[in-house]
Amino acid sequence: TDVKKIAVIAGDGIGPEVVAEAEKILKRTEEVFGLSFETEHALFGGIAIDKKGTPLPQETLTVCQSADAVLLGAVGGPQWDNNPKELRPETGLLGIRKELGLFSNLRPAVVFDCLKDASTLKPEVLEGTDLIVVRELTGGIYFGEKYRRESAQGEEAIDTCAYNVTEVERIVRQSFEIAQKRRKKLASVDKANVLETSRLWREVVNRVAVDYPDVELEHVLVDNCAMQLLRRPSSFDVIVTENMFGDILSDEAAMLTGSIGMLSSASLGEGSFGLYEPVHGSAPDIAGQGLANPIATILSVALMFRLTFGYEKAADAIEKAVAEVLDAGHRTADIAVDKSQAISTAQMGDLIAAAI
Amino acid sequence: TDVKKIAVIAGDGIGPEVVAEAEKILKRTEEVFGLSFETEHALFGGIAIDKKGTPLPQETLTVCQSADAVLLGAVGGPQWDNNPKELRPETGLLGIRKELGLFSNLRPAVVFDCLKDASTLKPEVLEGTDLIVVRELTGGIYFGEKYRRESAQGEEAIDTCAYNVTEVERIVRQSFEIAQKRRKKLASVDKANVLETSRLWREVVNRVAVDYPDVELEHVLVDNCAMQLLRRPSSFDVIVTENMFGDILSDEAAMLTGSIGMLSSASLGEGSFGLYEPVHGSAPDIAGQGLANPIATILSVALMFRLTFGYEKAADAIEKAVAEVLDAGHRTADIAVDKSQAISTAQMGDLIAAAI
Ligand SMILES: CC(C)[C@H](C(=O)O)[C@@H](O)C(=O)O
Ligand SMILES: CC(C)[C@H](C(=O)O)[C@@H](O)C(=O)O
Repeated sequence: TDVKKIAVIAGDGIGPEVVAEAEKILKRTEEVFGLSFETEHALFGGIAIDKKGTPLPQETLTVCQSADAVLLGAVGGPQWDNNPKELRPETGLLGIRKELGLFSNLRPAVVFDCLKDASTLKPEVLEGTDLIVVRELTGGIYFGEKYRRESAQGEEAIDTCAYNVTEVERIVRQSFEIAQKRRKKLASVDKANVLETSRLWREVVNRVAVDYPDVELEHVLVDNCAMQLLRRPSSFDVIVTENMFGDILSDEAAMLTGSIGMLSSASLGEGSFGLYEPVHGSAPDIAGQGLANPIATILSVALMFRLTFGYEKAADAIEKAVAEVLDAGHRTADIAVDKSQAISTAQMGDLIAAAI
Repeated sequence: TDVKKIAVIAGDGIGPEVVAEAEKILKRTEEVFGLSFETEHALFGGIAIDKKGTPLPQETLTVCQSADAVLLGAVGGPQWDNNPKELRPETGLLGIRKELGLFSNLRPAVVFDCLKDASTLKPEVLEGTDLIVVRELTGGIYFGEKYRRESAQGEEAIDTCAYNVTEVERIVRQSFEIAQKRRKKLASVDKANVLETSRLWREVVNRVAVDYPDVELEHVLVDNCAMQLLRRPSSFDVIVTENMFGDILSDEAAMLTGSIGMLSSASLGEGSFGLYEPVHGSAPDIAGQGLANPIATILSVALMFRLTFGYEKAADAIEKAVAEVLDAGHRTADIAVDKSQAISTAQMGDLIAAAI
């Protein structure tokens, strides 16, 4: 059979624990579906700073580049927060995105039935919410020139936000295509009443839209979008936006589902290569105690199967197994109503693997 | 007595209607408290584009500059949305902020008891929410250099985000001082793990914090803040942030109170001068029908009394009058449960004036 190579980056905090469960799932799908994976582990983030003196060692990049997909746990922790820029986990994150050409970050925000009550939103408002934020990931103010200079008013800091037509067009086309396979609605978010990059963004969206007449397009200003996500979350299908706005809005959207510990994400480039990771962070406070919920990482494997490998059946099986185990009432501590009944990270992984 | 000069800018859409009610309140406080106001009306926004060919005519600026405070209704509407930049209402807004040196925008987000249920958040989450977003208003990416250029990847647009120490320090000091008079908690929001302007921002905040040891300071990343506003809105007291982040977060915060139609805001510079306006927009769809809710604009007058004139008693009286009228069950259409019982814009203004 066709052997797929997966670079596995456990990272920091709860990263290694949740990734270990996702690897159980990989093994299980090999048995059940006759798939075949070759995994290679690599150091990244805080642990790479500690062991290799840099958050993104060249060998890690090489491992990723020779893989078909990357599975990432989580990176970061307080011990690296005051490091100089080149020795911070985030710098590794920005670096890996850029180096691997991952220009598109997909963050589905869905509501898990068993977690409906975990949202701070009223259930009737949340009802039917199933949206996906497509965030541009390698452009904008994140990657523009940054510097300091002296000014008459004291030291001055500058960030530059730039977007060219090619960068906007590829992510916008991808978003229209995702919308075509869903409910055929696309909201493009910008600040075209103030920013030049947003005006270019909107021009490109309007030009590209002509090729997707079946998709209903709306332009939403970013401040208004922050409001509408709260007011009518279920009315959104696909939201596409630039890097900085996407960072803010995708977190807002994830939080309002109440299911943030269960959400997975994909970062894609040209072709089928992708990096998959849970939306949640490295949660250093609960690391190493078997308390973490591995579901978001396990669902990231399902996303990988679907988007990079085209293993639809196996992806469905993983998602069904997760639903089954939750329906049977099993919960890790973060989502348990009665914490004394909570099962461990490994127990959750085992149950889901067994249910496949 | 001391005559205070107020520049009145009715603007577009429902602006003239809600401002007319606020003027009733001014008159009433003259009678009841022996105050004295001289109001001067000026054209601004869409109506100024139509009548004067520019959203911010020089004479409007002069009227504002010779006044002690400005009362603004709302600007904008679909008929100007596709105009070139210099003929758009927003350009007037940015211009007036810059020209009048209004570097600080205060947006209190409070929950009105009678509107608790209007929020999409669960009442128990919202309970006790009373925060204020202090948004830097004349710097950052809004006012940085903007241009286009050709690149190998097609046309490219650039926006520049700049902040100097002076700009950051004045708004941060003001925020600490506001926090001192409230619950003594300040959340400074930035993206210091990515942006150079945010790193400068955070340095200044930490330096200034030494002068306010009684205020509890937390640094919150902007993406995390978008989440925490949803998760624990009542834990925030004062939030200070830069222009673009403040635009997004203040709208999110306003919306989650459920009271967005009732919120007022102040834009301040050095000294006591200020511009006061409702948080809501020009609502062209209901303009001219007596359907608009004038309460946000009336409460903007209370804010003006308190922050610019130091008329504490009269400010209290306005706020008490609003509460009384609402407690008595009077509602404009936007906040009425039974729309058939709704009263008009003018009726609401009359009732509040009478209650003072
Ligand atoms: C850690 C940080 C640099 C990163 C980002 O802002 O992109 C994170 O917030 C994310 O969303 O993946
Ligand atoms: C109209 C627009 C330019 C303005 C802004 O972004 O500042 C508005 O959204 C606001 O918040 O006052």
